Amino acid sequence: MSENNKRTEIGDLGEFGLIDRLTKDVKIKHKTTAKGVGDDAAVFDYGGDEYTVLSTDILLEGIHFDLSFMPLQHLGYKAIAVNVSDIAAMNAIPEQVTVSIAVTNRFSVEAIEMIYEGINAACENYNVDLVGGDTTSSRQGLCISVTAVGRVKKDKISYRSGAKKGDILCVTGDLGGAYMGLQVLLREKTVFEANPKMQPNLDNYQYVAGRQLRPEARTDVIHELDELGVVPTSMIDVSDGVASEVLHICKASNVGAVVYEDKLPIDQDTFDVAHEFKIASKTPALNGGEDYELLFTIKQEDFSKLEKNANVFFIGYIDEAENGARLFTEGEQTLPLTAQGWKHF
Amino acid sequence: MSENNKRTEIGDLGEFGLIDRLTKDVKIKHKTTAKGVGDDAAVFDYGGDEYTVLSTDILLEGIHFDLSFMPLQHLGYKAIAVNVSDIAAMNAIPEQVTVSIAVTNRFSVEAIEMIYEGINAACENYNVDLVGGDTTSSRQGLCISVTAVGRVKKDKISYRSGAKKGDILCVTGDLGGAYMGLQVLLREKTVFEANPKMQPNLDNYQYVAGRQLRPEARTDVIHELDELGVVPTSMIDVSDGVASEVLHICKASNVGAVVYEDKLPIDQDTFDVAHEFKIASKTPALNGGEDYELLFTIKQEDFSKLEKNANVFFIGYIDEAENGARLFTEGEQTLPLTAQGWKHF
Repeated sequence: MSENNKRTEIGDLGEFGLIDRLTKDVKIKHKTTAKGVGDDAAVFDYGGDEYTVLSTDILLEGIHFDLSFMPLQHLGYKAIAVNVSDIAAMNAIPEQVTVSIAVTNRFSVEAIEMIYEGINAACENYNVDLVGGDTTSSRQGLCISVTAVGRVKKDKISYRSGAKKGDILCVTGDLGGAYMGLQVLLREKTVFEANPKMQPNLDNYQYVAGRQLRPEARTDVIHELDELGVVPTSMIDVSDGVASEVLHICKASNVGAVVYEDKLPIDQDTFDVAHEFKIASKTPALNGGEDYELLFTIKQEDFSKLEKNANVFFIGYIDEAENGARLFTEGEQTLPLTAQGWKHF
Repeated sequence: MSENNKRTEIGDLGEFGLIDRLTKDVKIKHKTTAKGVGDDAAVFDYGGDEYTVLSTDILLEGIHFDLSFMPLQHLGYKAIAVNVSDIAAMNAIPEQVTVSIAVTNRFSVEAIEMIYEGINAACENYNVDLVGGDTTSSRQGLCISVTAVGRVKKDKISYRSGAKKGDILCVTGDLGGAYMGLQVLLREKTVFEANPKMQPNLDNYQYVAGRQLRPEARTDVIHELDELGVVPTSMIDVSDGVASEVLHICKASNVGAVVYEDKLPIDQDTFDVAHEFKIASKTPALNGGEDYELLFTIKQEDFSKLEKNANVFFIGYIDEAENGARLFTEGEQTLPLTAQGWKHF
């Protein structure tokens, strides 16, 4: 590989900086492309009153999942759920998925069938059609790539870029559980590796382990918002931690935001596990990834429609851009909101 | 991994057998899904007079490409071209692509930019919009997943399943070059590994090496067929060798076929290189993969429209199913047509 001598490390730019750099000169040529790079999904306009939205994701063994504690069925389920979540984040209803799997020959047909059990269960649960399947070999590790396609009425699509000053920041469920689940699973793995006679005991960690191993996409909330006549002014799914996602909305919408630390929904189990790990539970709630809840903003006039909804938690509001994104802590301090997020590099 | 004790090797089923087994129970729930698993692309019907088609592919280092002789720009170009080729194989015009790349930290930002140079060149050349990009880390090796989307008028779509007895089998270009190119590149790699002072000399192998490293999708032919008013009765792209693709059409269309060995288009360079390697040039023409030409069938009445076309070669005809797929050899023997194809497992 000739690289013209200059070498910039990917870690210096970070994932988002890298994508910005790679796609900064992209020009759109087709009128069917309503939105390209920069949101949870690409948006296509084929005429009529609906948009088609498309999202794609790649999951790699050793990076996105660890087969020493991730059952194959759960992996298949999660691969579909995280892509469906991106479709939901556009306020769209998913309809189709394609799945490409690459495996080494250490995987048997039966093992791949277990992955497909999870894929089929997720397709059933999210009411999507599996319309393409491809299985190829890999030299090392398992790799799953999923593309999801959905539709949304044009006047109901939610981009990251639509938040306005005064809008209310909402999230669809409790945060930080998936991160604490991962910590528990990693700890049990270490114990098991040190002493294979010690069988992992997850009895007290069912909730957080489940949040990590079998997250759900919140398509239920998309249907609910539709029934209530609420169109989020902006939306994104919480894959990298809610702090990172709030910052994405602020950047795309050119606004600031205030997040109230004491409004972050945290499950009692997550709180207890964080306590056991000597971590303040607000940290995984803000910066733990993979909860796959939806973060969205609504107009103040829509507040009454959601006020009593068990699936919606109000965590802050949208402010002017010049005020930046801020965290209002339980100690009544105001701090800049920062994203650790998931840095795979 | 518990696998219920039973273990079937993937190699026992083969890639196509495995996909058949995994997707045999797939049920279609949405009226927008016009065609799911089983063709070059999935087909969506959003009303109107056009279909949307979607195809996805995953390319892995060490399986689908070898970075010791594959320049990064060419890799980016090829990743787009092979997906665009699947869209073309539906007689559709590609419009959008998304690209997910996973790399280890041995790749610099500049190296990834080189891949994107090729991606952007291909997007320019095939007139497609890059609408989604995702870059993540991998533990080992480079992995590229591309999804391509296109459109076609409903009365012009070509499935694998539409071939009828008496239709003429056509191919858009010479065959076997990509395979012989791969053999040359692998040989030069071996020479270089044995003695790093021996620089590879590809001067006499430009054509075949180019067929391997920088294949083109034949969207030009799709436009040409449209202008000539020819709609293929069936079509597939030649990724696994023309014998394998003829068998796919026969199976999907429930027909037989005759392929004339002496009609297979083979470039002089491919012929010469095959001779040098002591391989009968018909072998890579029939079974060598990755030429990315289009194999299609036309009604006899359309023959006169394509008879003098420099991009179309007539290699046989469609027969009754009970006669099977046969090869009529230069020695005037009739043999069953068999596919070695690309077996990655």
